[in-house]
Amino acid sequence: MRVFIAGVDGYLGWSLANHLTAKGHDVGGADMFFRRRWVEEMGSTSAIPIAPIEERLKAFKRHYGKELDFWCGDLRDYSLVQQIFREFKPDAVVHLGECPSAPFSMIDVHHAVFVQTNNITTTFNLIFAIRDIRPRTHLLKLGTMGEYGTPNMDIPEGFFEIEYKGKKDRLPFPRQAGSWYHWSKVHGSNNIMFASKIYGLAATDVMQGVVFGTRINGSPAKDERLWSRLDFDQAFGTAVNRFCCQAVIGHPITLYGRGHQKRGFLPLRDSMQCLTLALENPPKPGEYRVFNQFEEVHDLTELALKVQRVGRSQGLFVPISHLENPRMELEEHYYKPERKHLLELKYRPTHDLDGEIATMLQDLLPHRDRIERFQDVLTPDLRWSGERRKVRTQEAPAPSNGRKIPRAPFTRNDSSLPASPGA
Amino acid sequence: MRVFIAGVDGYLGWSLANHLTAKGHDVGGADMFFRRRWVEEMGSTSAIPIAPIEERLKAFKRHYGKELDFWCGDLRDYSLVQQIFREFKPDAVVHLGECPSAPFSMIDVHHAVFVQTNNITTTFNLIFAIRDIRPRTHLLKLGTMGEYGTPNMDIPEGFFEIEYKGKKDRLPFPRQAGSWYHWSKVHGSNNIMFASKIYGLAATDVMQGVVFGTRINGSPAKDERLWSRLDFDQAFGTAVNRFCCQAVIGHPITLYGRGHQKRGFLPLRDSMQCLTLALENPPKPGEYRVFNQFEEVHDLTELALKVQRVGRSQGLFVPISHLENPRMELEEHYYKPERKHLLELKYRPTHDLDGEIATMLQDLLPHRDRIERFQDVLTPDLRWSGERRKVRTQEAPAPSNGRKIPRAPFTRNDSSLPASPGA
Repeated sequence: MRVFIAGVDGYLGWSLANHLTAKGHDVGGADMFFRRRWVEEMGSTSAIPIAPIEERLKAFKRHYGKELDFWCGDLRDYSLVQQIFREFKPDAVVHLGECPSAPFSMIDVHHAVFVQTNNITTTFNLIFAIRDIRPRTHLLKLGTMGEYGTPNMDIPEGFFEIEYKGKKDRLPFPRQAGSWYHWSKVHGSNNIMFASKIYGLAATDVMQGVVFGTRINGSPAKDERLWSRLDFDQAFGTAVNRFCCQAVIGHPITLYGRGHQKRGFLPLRDSMQCLTLALENPPKPGEYRVFNQFEEVHDLTELALKVQRVGRSQGLFVPISHLENPRMELEEHYYKPERKHLLELKYRPTHDLDGEIATMLQDLLPHRDRIERFQDVLTPDLRWSGERRKVRTQEAPAPSNGRKIPRAPFTRNDSSLPASPGA
Repeated sequence: MRVFIAGVDGYLGWSLANHLTAKGHDVGGADMFFRRRWVEEMGSTSAIPIAPIEERLKAFKRHYGKELDFWCGDLRDYSLVQQIFREFKPDAVVHLGECPSAPFSMIDVHHAVFVQTNNITTTFNLIFAIRDIRPRTHLLKLGTMGEYGTPNMDIPEGFFEIEYKGKKDRLPFPRQAGSWYHWSKVHGSNNIMFASKIYGLAATDVMQGVVFGTRINGSPAKDERLWSRLDFDQAFGTAVNRFCCQAVIGHPITLYGRGHQKRGFLPLRDSMQCLTLALENPPKPGEYRVFNQFEEVHDLTELALKVQRVGRSQGLFVPISHLENPRMELEEHYYKPERKHLLELKYRPTHDLDGEIATMLQDLLPHRDRIERFQDVLTPDLRWSGERRKVRTQEAPAPSNGRKIPRAPFTRNDSSLPASPGA
């Protein structure tokens, strides 16, 4: 299968290029390196060092014995997208060419406008290139479980049958996103749903949980140029990745507010497994299918405690700290999303969270110096109100179930840390 | 009250500026004359001649004895919006600065991108100017009943209480819009709902039905420079306005497909009444309220027959023609939107559709020549599939209720037409 990855230089994009190629597919991709710049703008860097694209592509060819067809450019430019479709002739497009950060979108009007118009425009360009150039191309678009928010009821996969005032219909499940970024994904989902209806687009819309991890199955190679980036700043570092980066430098794990937010999570290797299943089992023309893609639902405090425990077993001192919540979100809530479609396609969740965290810590330890150098980014200052001010540490709140979370003091240079390989 | 109207040169904007000023409010506005250019791009013109803005503003001052504070510029430019907020200090903003055409948004990728990014960006700029400069400003944003689509159940005003798998919640009513334009309005509604939640924005989101008519209460003045535009092309001419323009030149009224689409309609004077009620009864900070704003629900065939009947009583020969439907939409469906909020604010629907149509025909007759000159635009060629090809006339379909709609042949220069004043 010929798969084009929009945003191939990113965390998921680069991993997917490797994973699909290892499975025998032909991969093309485009990128404009926005992600590298955004993380720089946040004053941060990737914990795992990443090579310039030229190096990555060279290593790719050497490892797999075939090229990754690469276009450097901005997918907001429709003529570029047309050119790619004519030259690469994709059977499927995976749309990762969007800005994926909630805090980044909340910075100010310019970031809000950029994130939404960028994400909408790239999605439109892919929709229309499919319609006008290769109508049979499957569009796999990454949405997020965050589109649904946290309603006080089960979350179906995209649609539900309901009754209102005696009449029944099957309707899209209402979205209640929590940031301008999350809303941009809702806008994209709505646009793709409509494109399927009017243009006969075959589309998979993946409501993905929070991805974490450094590894994909069957890979990564010893060649570090084939590894994917891993961010830990407040805007592009997601929960477990950030926790593990904190753990390896002895920075307290930062929970926001009460810390009982529940989310669907999945390791990077499972994300790759799921996306590949979706690609290898495409929808029919005109079919718009929504997958809720996650391995398990976790409470953030549980996750922090898990990272703490696994870290301890590796000799790491891992305190946990409660910060003021810079976001506006429920910190304790009902959460029960459904997840059937991917299981029907034979998704086998790995269910080895401890193992995944242990591997991550091992993979991150050699890069402790890099993380330490940028540790200032571990405490957020981007508030949902628009104010930019570092959040303060709070007393650990007593959770409503009566459990008291142990709070350890923050020790930056704890001697129990194993020596950093770079030291 | 100081009311700023984004898009003050348009059909609703200009009417509202007159209506509010007549009621004693202070009105400011901005416009970039996009609407004039878009209608030109459609190969059309306003049936009611409209003067350049300088003339309009002069007439305005002369008639009301006060200025309309006007900014010429693009509201996608945040620095302009900031400047306006600092200079005009609005108590309320009415957002009409969006591209309002479904067919226009369906032309191609560039129009789809333009309509959605324009509408999102202007909305963001207003939201942030309120947040950062005048947080108490009421944002009144025009949405459309088309955001809801035509679900097989009653349509509440924005939100509904439902039960799913034994759990209850109050959720936004799912939207199923029918064009890229309509989706842009959904995106805007979602963004404003979220802005209310996180920034404490006081917002009214008006899901407006199809507006028609040439008149507002207490006006218009004899000075034609104070009249609002009225479009009849396939993209900017809405149903009743288009039907009346067709009626005055003896062009068959164009029903799309079976012609039993149902929509909420309201005369321009009622739209002004409702918007003014919303402005004079603002929501509280952080309140996001949704008004379904229409006078009555009508079946398009009923409306066509009504225009035909009223036209006949004025000596006009008004045939009705069924065209291929260029849109993708249900042509017969359940439709029962709720409408309580505006009635609670003492909206008094005029309920004089025949009178309104009679007045419109009288107002349009002097401009028959203008409409005739551009009559080619009365037959649509913008199809939802993206193809651009004139639709064909069809045999009148037998509606499912067994009623047969009379079809008269198309006669362009029927002698029963009263003489055009310009002839």
